[in-house]
This record gives sequence, C-alpha cells and structure tokens, in this order.
Amino acid sequence: MKAYVRHSMGVVGWMEKPDPVCGPDEVICRPLALCPCSSDVHTAWEMDGAWLKDITLGHEVIGQVIEAGKDVKDFKVGDKVIVPCTTPTWKHPDIQDGDPWDAGGMFAGINFSNYEDGVMAEKFKVRSADMNLCHLPEGMPYEKAIMVVDMMTTGFHGCELANVRYGDTVVVFGIGPVGLMAIAGAKLMGAAQLIGIGTRPNCVKIAKEYGATDIISYKDGDVVEQIMKITNGRGVDVAIVAGGDAETLGQAYMVTRCGGAMTNLNVITGTNEFKFTYASCGGGFMGHKTVNGGLCPGGRRRAERLTAMVQADRLDPSLMVTHTFHGLDSIGEALQLMKDKPRDLIKPIVICD
Amino acid sequence: MKAYVRHSMGVVGWMEKPDPVCGPDEVICRPLALCPCSSDVHTAWEMDGAWLKDITLGHEVIGQVIEAGKDVKDFKVGDKVIVPCTTPTWKHPDIQDGDPWDAGGMFAGINFSNYEDGVMAEKFKVRSADMNLCHLPEGMPYEKAIMVVDMMTTGFHGCELANVRYGDTVVVFGIGPVGLMAIAGAKLMGAAQLIGIGTRPNCVKIAKEYGATDIISYKDGDVVEQIMKITNGRGVDVAIVAGGDAETLGQAYMVTRCGGAMTNLNVITGTNEFKFTYASCGGGFMGHKTVNGGLCPGGRRRAERLTAMVQADRLDPSLMVTHTFHGLDSIGEALQLMKDKPRDLIKPIVICD
Amino acid sequence: MKAYVRHSMGVVGWMEKPDPVCGPDEVICRPLALCPCSSDVHTAWEMDGAWLKDITLGHEVIGQVIEAGKDVKDFKVGDKVIVPCTTPTWKHPDIQDGDPWDAGGMFAGINFSNYEDGVMAEKFKVRSADMNLCHLPEGMPYEKAIMVVDMMTTGFHGCELANVRYGDTVVVFGIGPVGLMAIAGAKLMGAAQLIGIGTRPNCVKIAKEYGATDIISYKDGDVVEQIMKITNGRGVDVAIVAGGDAETLGQAYMVTRCGGAMTNLNVITGTNEFKFTYASCGGGFMGHKTVNGGLCPGGRRRAERLTAMVQADRLDPSLMVTHTFHGLDSIGEALQLMKDKPRDLIKPIVICD
Amino acid sequence: MKAYVRHSMGVVGWMEKPDPVCGPDEVICRPLALCPCSSDVHTAWEMDGAWLKDITLGHEVIGQVIEAGKDVKDFKVGDKVIVPCTTPTWKHPDIQDGDPWDAGGMFAGINFSNYEDGVMAEKFKVRSADMNLCHLPEGMPYEKAIMVVDMMTTGFHGCELANVRYGDTVVVFGIGPVGLMAIAGAKLMGAAQLIGIGTRPNCVKIAKEYGATDIISYKDGDVVEQIMKITNGRGVDVAIVAGGDAETLGQAYMVTRCGGAMTNLNVITGTNEFKFTYASCGGGFMGHKTVNGGLCPGGRRRAERLTAMVQADRLDPSLMVTHTFHGLDSIGEALQLMKDKPRDLIKPIVICD
Repeated sequence: MKAYVRHSMGVVGWMEKPDPVCGPDEVICRPLALCPCSSDVHTAWEMDGAWLKDITLGHEVIGQVIEAGKDVKDFKVGDKVIVPCTTPTWKHPDIQDGDPWDAGGMFAGINFSNYEDGVMAEKFKVRSADMNLCHLPEGMPYEKAIMVVDMMTTGFHGCELANVRYGDTVVVFGIGPVGLMAIAGAKLMGAAQLIGIGTRPNCVKIAKEYGATDIISYKDGDVVEQIMKITNGRGVDVAIVAGGDAETLGQAYMVTRCGGAMTNLNVITGTNEFKFTYASCGGGFMGHKTVNGGLCPGGRRRAERLTAMVQADRLDPSLMVTHTFHGLDSIGEALQLMKDKPRDLIKPIVICD
Repeated sequence: MKAYVRHSMGVVGWMEKPDPVCGPDEVICRPLALCPCSSDVHTAWEMDGAWLKDITLGHEVIGQVIEAGKDVKDFKVGDKVIVPCTTPTWKHPDIQDGDPWDAGGMFAGINFSNYEDGVMAEKFKVRSADMNLCHLPEGMPYEKAIMVVDMMTTGFHGCELANVRYGDTVVVFGIGPVGLMAIAGAKLMGAAQLIGIGTRPNCVKIAKEYGATDIISYKDGDVVEQIMKITNGRGVDVAIVAGGDAETLGQAYMVTRCGGAMTNLNVITGTNEFKFTYASCGGGFMGHKTVNGGLCPGGRRRAERLTAMVQADRLDPSLMVTHTFHGLDSIGEALQLMKDKPRDLIKPIVICD
Repeated sequence: MKAYVRHSMGVVGWMEKPDPVCGPDEVICRPLALCPCSSDVHTAWEMDGAWLKDITLGHEVIGQVIEAGKDVKDFKVGDKVIVPCTTPTWKHPDIQDGDPWDAGGMFAGINFSNYEDGVMAEKFKVRSADMNLCHLPEGMPYEKAIMVVDMMTTGFHGCELANVRYGDTVVVFGIGPVGLMAIAGAKLMGAAQLIGIGTRPNCVKIAKEYGATDIISYKDGDVVEQIMKITNGRGVDVAIVAGGDAETLGQAYMVTRCGGAMTNLNVITGTNEFKFTYASCGGGFMGHKTVNGGLCPGGRRRAERLTAMVQADRLDPSLMVTHTFHGLDSIGEALQLMKDKPRDLIKPIVICD
Repeated sequence: MKAYVRHSMGVVGWMEKPDPVCGPDEVICRPLALCPCSSDVHTAWEMDGAWLKDITLGHEVIGQVIEAGKDVKDFKVGDKVIVPCTTPTWKHPDIQDGDPWDAGGMFAGINFSNYEDGVMAEKFKVRSADMNLCHLPEGMPYEKAIMVVDMMTTGFHGCELANVRYGDTVVVFGIGPVGLMAIAGAKLMGAAQLIGIGTRPNCVKIAKEYGATDIISYKDGDVVEQIMKITNGRGVDVAIVAGGDAETLGQAYMVTRCGGAMTNLNVITGTNEFKFTYASCGGGFMGHKTVNGGLCPGGRRRAERLTAMVQADRLDPSLMVTHTFHGLDSIGEALQLMKDKPRDLIKPIVICD
C-alpha cells in the first residue's frame, strides 16, 4: 500500500509500504477523511530522530474498518469510526494511577506517527480497538466528526485541567484551532467573560461564535496589562495557553488570580530556555495558582463523549474547516498548506471517501 | 412600613411593621422586583412553628439600596442590587470548613423568611452586605436578574454537586423552574444527552430551548425503564431530582451508572417515610454512586458569577417568566397564583419599580 | 485438582474439578495463604442463584505462580504474589469512566467466587495478570500481606470515598476487620478524633492501637446521642459504616455535619426495606452531606500501593489475625469458624505453604 | 509597651510603641511563647520597603487574651490561645472563591509583620478573633502547640496541595522544620515510600522519626538521578519543595511522574531569574503534572484541626525544638540564632510565661 511519510527531517512524500498486520484486538481501517495538523508539520520538518525515519505521518482521521481482529467485540468490517489521535495502550498498569495519556511514559499515548505509523495511508492500524474507537454516528458530517479526534479533545482538555466553573473569567492565549476549541469548551463548562487573544479576522469571528466575549491583540500593547484592565484588576480565574512561546507561560501565570488555574496545551519547541521572573512565576509558583498541561486525552469513551456533544449540537466544530481537498492524493498539498499557514487557514480537510 | 406576612399557618396578608434597622455592615433596600416561590407557599401554608408567626415572606428580589451601614464599602444608597436568596452569615467559622450555606446549622444560610423577615415588604434588610450583594448590571432586565437569586443558583447547584462533565448523559426529574435551570446548567457544564422528565407543554418547550435532547413523561410508563431504554441500558452519568417525592430518589439512584452521581434539590415534605428497596439503593448505596443534595448556594461571588453568565448571554432565564404583575400591592395575588399552580405557570414576577 | 466449593445454598465441601486453563494474559497460582471472609459465609450460606452452583469459594489469598500465559510480562513461574480480591477486567471501556471496580456492571470486578471460581483450591487462575497482581515483597509475612487484598483495601476505601482530611473527626460504625482497617486508614489520611463503635474487647484494644481516640458502645444508649455529645454537638466530618443494618445508614447521616461525608462499606442483606425518616436523611439527603459506598478497589497498582504502606510500616494489619490454621485441608474448619464468629475472632488465616 | 522591631533593613531592636487598640471583633493578647522563623530573618535583614519601617517582627506565637472586643463570642480575657501566623480577613469576598489565604491579594493573609505589627511585643492584636483563634487545649505543652501556627500548617499544606494518596511515593526537598512537617504530613496522608533530601544529622534523625523511609544527600551526586534510581525509574507521585533555589523547582518537576504533583512551600528570593530547560519543565509543563504552591493556610478551623491532630498524638511536632530561651527579653538572642543557623538548629522557642 502507499503511505505519506517523513523520509527524513524536511523530506516528505509517498512511499510503498507493506500492509499493516491486524492483531487479535486490533482493526485495520481505510481513511474516509484526514486532517493535517500543526504537529504533522512539526514531526516532518522540525523533529529529528532515527525512529522517525520513513514514519507514516498523520493522526487526525475518520475511517472505515476493513479488517477486525478476532477479539474485537464492538467493531466489525464496514463500520465507520472516529479514531482518537491519542490511542493509549490500555494494558499498562500506569492507567490505574489515573493518567492513561502518558501510560508508559510522557506522551506515550500519542502512538500514531510517533511510536508507530500514522494514518496518512491507504490503510492504518488501530490498537486496542474496543478501547480506542468510537462509532461515527449515522449522518454526522466528516467535517464535524474529525474535529473530535484532536482539536476538540485538546482544546477542551485545557478547560478540564483548569476546572472551569460557572461564571469564571477565562482567557485563551492563541485562537488557532486548539484555542478556538478551548473557547468553545470554556463556554461549555460555564465560563462567563471569555477573552481570546489573537488577530486573524476569521479566527476572531469564529472565536466570538464559540463564545468569546472579548478579543484582545498582541498588537495593542502588553497583553498582561490589557487583561488586567478588562478584568478590573482582578485577573482571570483561568488562563489557557494554546499558542505563543515560553514567555506566554509567565504572562498566563501573572494574569491568573490567586486560587485560579492556568494550563498549557502546546509543547513549546524551538527553545531550551524557559525563563520566568519573580513576578511572572510568583516567587516560584507560590500564588496558589494551579499550573498544569498536557496533550490530548484519547480513547473510546473520551471520543464517545465529545461525539455525543457534537450530536447534541452543543457546538459545531466544523466552522473551523477553511479548506477542503478531495482524494487521498491531495494529502501532500494539504500538509504543505498547513506548513505555509496562509492567514485565512484554520483547518484543512482531505475527503478520501 | 407594610409587609406581606404569614400570620399563622395558612393565614397570610399585609401587616404594619417597624422599619428595619440598619447595622454597620448591613443595607436597607426597597424592592424593585419580586418573585414568589414554591418555598413561600410552603412556608405560608404548610410549615408550622412559633418562630414563623408574622414573619415577612419572600426571598427572591432585586432591590435598591436606600440606607447603607458605615462599614459597607462596595454598595451605596441608590445602587441597584441582586439579592441572593441565601445570605450566609460569613462570620461563623463553619464557613472555613467549606459549606457556607449551612454555616451554623442545616439551611441556616436561608435567612430570609426563615430566621429573619423576608423581602416582601416596602423595605428589607440584607446582612453582611459586602459579602452578600451583587450589583445589578446596567441594562439587565429585572426578569433575567431575579432568576439568578434562587432558580439559577439552585438548578445549577445540582449540576455542580454531581460534577457534570463533558459528554455526560444527564436526566432531570421535574421540569418546573428549578428543573429547567438544572437543564440549562447541565448544558453549560458539558452535558451531551440531556433528558427531562415532565409533561407541561410550555415547560417541555423551554426545556428543549435550554438544551434537553429528550423528554419523557411519567404518563408513558415506568420512568426507570424509559431512561434505561433511551440510554441503551447504560443509565445516566448524572441524575438530578428537581421534583417528585421520596420514591423519586430511588428511581434516580437506580438509573445512575456506577461511578456516576445523583443530587436532590428539593426538600421532600409531606412524608416522614423515605423507603428504598435493595435495588433502589444498591444494597445501601453500594454502587459507587455519589449522592448529595442541598439548597441554593448564595453570597456575593456566587451571584456575581451567575449574573456574569447571564450578561455573557450563556442563557436567558427570563424565558421562565410566564406571569407579570405590577406594583408591590399585587404580591398577594402573585403568591396565590404560585399556590394555585395553573398549568401554564412557571414563574410569576411582580415589578415594583 | 480439589477445590472447596459451595455446592448449593448451605452446602459446602471439597470437590474434584479440572485444572484451570491459563489464557495468554493470565496466570495459574497455588495458594500460599488463604483467609476466609464474611463474604464467603454470605456466598455459601445466604446467597442463592444457579450461577453459584459448585462455585469455588474464597477471594483472599497470597499465591505462587505455577504457570504464566505468553503475554504476561511482569510475573513468571515461581513468583510469589499478592492477589487482590477485586480483579477488574481492564478490557471494558467502563474503566475509562473512572470506576474500574464496577466496569461491566455493579460488583463485576469481584470476579472470584461470584462470576468465576474462587481461590480456595489447589490451583486458581488470575485474569489480566499484569494488571491485577502485585509482587510479594521479600520477607513480608503472609499475615501482613494477605490483609492487603480485601480488609485494607476495603476499610481504606471508606476513608477515600469520604475524603478524610487533616484534623477530621471520624466515626466508624462497627469495628470488625473492615472497621478496624477504616480506623487505621482514617488515621493515615489525617483524622484527629476517631471514634469507633463496638464492644468486643480485642477489637476495642486493636481499634485503639490503630488510632481510635474514643470507643462507644451500642449498649450504652443511642449512638447518635453519644456521638453528638462526644463531638460537642457538631457531629463528625466523616462517618464510615462498616457494620450494622439499614438503620445504621440513617444514624450515620444524622451525625455527619453539613458539608461532611458518609460512606458505606458493607452490602446490607437480609432486608429489602431501607427506611429513613425526614431527620435521618435530611429531607431527602438535602444536608450537603456526600453519601457514597462500594466494595473494595482492586487491581495491581492498588495492591502495590497498600503493600508499600505495609512495607513502610505505616500500620501492621496482622494484628487482626486471631486464629491460624495450617494446610489447605483446614480451609473448611476456618470457614466454619468465620460462620460461627466466636467473640474473640477477628480474622482467621490458613497457611498452605 | 515595648516591641521588637525591624527599624530598617538589617537594623532590629526594642522600641517603645503605643498599646494596640482593640476593635469590636478583635482581641489583644500577651505572648506566652514565641518562635522566631526564617521569615522573620528574611523580613528583618533581606526585605526592603517603606511599609516595613519600625514594624514589629514575629508571627509564631501562643498567647493569652488580655482584652476582647464586644463582638467576640468565643474568646474571653484569660483564655490561652493558639494564634495562626496566617490570619486572613474573613470580610473580603475573595474568600468565597476558595482561597482565603490570599484574599485581597497574594500573601494578604500573612498580616503579622507584613501589613500590621507582628507578635514580638508585650501585647499584640489579633483581627477577627472568632474566625482566627483557636483555644489552647488544657495541658498541651507550648512546644507542641506553637508548631501548629506555622511549621505544621505550612508543611502539611504541601501534602494537601499535592493531594498525597495512599501508597504514594513522596520526595521532600529540604528537611528543615517545614520539610520535616511535610514529611510528617505526607505520612499522615498515606504516603508509603517517603524520601527526604538533606544532610544535617539531627534533621535526618527526626525525618526518620516522622516517617522518612529514605534520606538522600546533595553531596552524593545529582539528586534527580538518585531519586530515579531509588524509585526504580518511575519517579515520585509527589514532590514537595521545602528548601533550595530556583533550580530545585526543575528537579522536582523532573522526578514527578506524569499525572503526579509537585508543590513549592518557600518563596524563592535572592534571584529574579527562574530558568527551566525543556526537560526540567516538560516542554512547558506538558507532563500532566500539577504544579502548585503557596504560603501557610490559617484561620481558626485550620488551627483547630491541626491542634486536634497533636492532641490525638498523630505526631509530636515538639521534636523540632532544639533551643529554648526564657523571657520575652531573649527574643533578640533567639532571632539572632535563627539568623546564624548553627548546624544543630531546627527551631528555637522563647517561653515568655
């Protein structure tokens, strides 16, 4: 079969690979729709490491089961499925300590295109199928369903980690697709005032549709000052970082009120120095502000829960799809678009069906 | 001044009373808008006790400050205020153990018309004003703001106590005003499938506007069976009781999945016998289902938080106002309506301004 | 092989059975030490049901691996292991919703002698070995280690469900082995005043060694009154029910302060009627008191955690062993003792090694 | 009256001051026992600011009420009291958002010798007496009781913020008095393996008495490596920082397992640069490790809870008292000792009674 791979750092393209072999509790799927992600760009053009040689890219996909292992109970050939980008092994005792996403080591649940081949291929394998897959509800458009697998689960995770509560004032740093989903997620955990930080017009427009009450821009001056002003000096209950750099973390800490929470949703790369001043970390995180962060939760129930929210019309994540491609062949073009990040891009989708 | 009081059980009416005296951290207000509540009916016609003799009724009110004690910092004469129906004493160390609503004893925070005079009068007093009041935002209609003080805080409380999470399946027993707010509140904590139990047409209509995905009726057979069917045998993650009787509690327990939560929001009166079978309480609440309940949280920050949600348009609680009266004089008529509960009634309001 | 079974209700004895067959992720063990449990008495003499015919009894065991499936990574033939009495299937998506003990249905994790054969046999099987077993630390006496598998995990669970905090006042209803472990567990979650309810002299003695500061007796009058008196009218922060009947639940609710928690650890059988008065359930659990309950958590990490506590000498659970038998053959005698419950019995152990 | 003050940075001594004036909800006390604290050294010799001119030092004290305001209900002249070092204003609505320690601004609850005069004087004032004081139990030695007010509440707080659970592996960086109390507190929240980092012989000895199972030393090489080795590569569930510098925070983050928690208990001064590498902060705190920190919780119930633990003999905090002085006059000498930090010093006490 053919697969779209990262040959070496900066070199991507199609490659012939053997078909994946289906284990007893696994399934093999064909893609129905795919989305390139910033992380794919990161893997392809910025990360290095021997284990990434010729690895198939991609982790955002809706698929159809074409083979199912003998122990798989709830999914059969022909089923259309939502495939979480995080597919933890559910066979490691670490899951019993409450963090399945990192069971076996930090980020170990992000299996696709990190530890095993990704989903940008004619066929891809999903491990522990009964524990990781979710049925695609009849009639749900691919554009909505595919947002569940990474963007929604990641953005919403920021709100969960920070435990957004009724009436919270929340700020989201960055209103790309993850930030937009953090905004939608904050509204759906009870946020009242909801501040987005960003500038791109279509992102601003969608941020407001998702519930942002205020938008501020890096271009209008110091964001810390802007946030303190807009909150009458109280700061926010919750700050979610969905973009920016190492400095953003300190800004987020500073604007969070004592007793509040800040979370980070994006691995900050390109630097090995994370600096804080006394003020930007409260003398060593001494302000009773909870700091947390992590990548996207996955697995079956997570996907079922978010899919149920889409089905109940709690939000329409497909508003973020700005560019549509047709045919698996166009995956390279879509990925390149993600790399180029034109100003009007939020999420591209490739319909393979 | 004149006040609308419960003379004795079943006997209500106007009475001349001395003006309330303002303590150093208290304010005196005049009512701008009032809502009678089922609890008022309960206090007036069903409860008995010497301490209730000639007590002024009413606890749902928007007011205007006409006198402010010398230690009050944030509220001054002329300010329009939202007055939580629960005004805890914030001077009891019990608040330091995390349950201010019951500081000093169960229900002790429900001061109005229980321990001190209520708000259905030309003037009423609010204790610990800086800790209990919330400014009425410029331009917010009374019909919206007054729903904050009891209906919203109570209904939303059910969702908080049960810790509704993204994608939860939630059932609300009873879709009177508290149940409707529980539905709106469940949506705003991330519920997906959201089942309301009730029959009155205008309640059903509003339940759907607030986010109910399914409505079932006691008239269509056993509600437990209906809920299990609608949830494919899994039951719900969260059950909220906002109506019904002692038996309802057992039904709620039964339909809650193991690991889920049920909460009760209404004091069940008229019986001294709460019976459960082995099945309806899991052999003594052994199903890892959290059971909790309590009356409406109050105080300043609570009111500010919910008011901010209304201001951010997260919901429109004024949809529940079905009957409008004008003038303080009409309070008796409005209360009588609450007692009679015509089929189209949800909430009556008395505009006094 | 021979196994000690419940032939039919009230009829127990040895029986020849085929050896258990080891699946790829399973192990077969021989028992090193066994404890009969009240639940065995319950299963053998009180429960009825076709699925219990000829079922092997027993769920408290320390064993040695005599066969290991090919997928088992962390346990090999010859290893001595602590076998949790609760061995959840870790292959059901319910575990992803946070309650593995009941994954697949209430009590489904209590596999031994309920859904499959128990451990009172020459050989027994453990499912999902890597996820359910714990290595027996070198040199740890069987008497200590075997208390981990049910008594400790169950008693401690009451404290966890109630979230005991520093300085809490805690009451434990019943000071049999589960109650004693609840007392030890409450101390190890920070309880200060710690009240045990019971009368048997050796239980009273050990309760004090485990941290009880006060002991009260049913024989000295109404326990609710006694508790309220001993707590200066405030009631307790946490009430744990580890014995008693349906009425005990109401007593526990009443003595718990508003904002506190009560938990139940024993399935109350022998009645189908659980009655509460208005006072004994706060008008329908309206006192902001969290009610919860459930059987013993299990699995590998749970066992490893509790074993590590024993190893660090946080408590000595072997104080509860009052009767020691030698040889697998004596299991019938030990079980009969458990049924007869002589006044000086806490836990019997059968050393098979 | 005379008071021991910080005249200016580095200049301390006795000074004549007017007697404190007692407000209606306040009390005036005389000291029965005092402890100097590292924070006093910090305030006296390291901090600068106009508001600190001539401020009375000291915040660790046991006192006797010599005057009580008219609104004070639970404390009267002659009562011996434990005075928390953190005495929040309970009149600020921030307490309703769940962080009373910082109500009104970060550290605002640390009133003594920061915002108002401290306790090293013939007389000192306690605000909101009913909300902040705790009765000294009959017969409790001052050496035990005075440890409640700062050392215990601070050290225990680290365990609470990190939510130590049964069987957790915990490391405490620094085994001065706060670290020692973190060790004792971790044991009393269920820690199993409990690693202290430090070298001073008497601290090591007491750390073991309080529950440390392992002691490691900075002198024996990289502490991260030592911790990873001692935990078989898994890291710890909880890391508590009670000493060290900015770099210690990164070490603590690194050794914490994914899903675990780290807390910081000491304001790190003397630097304005807090640097992390990619590894030492998980690419921006992306490891699902909760980071938190803050100063000592205070108020009445907190003190009552910890005092009840001492009374129930859950620990003996007086083991930490290494130097005893007699007479208020010796406070200067005791403070100087704290500044000099001889190798055998843990806590000095001044008995004034």
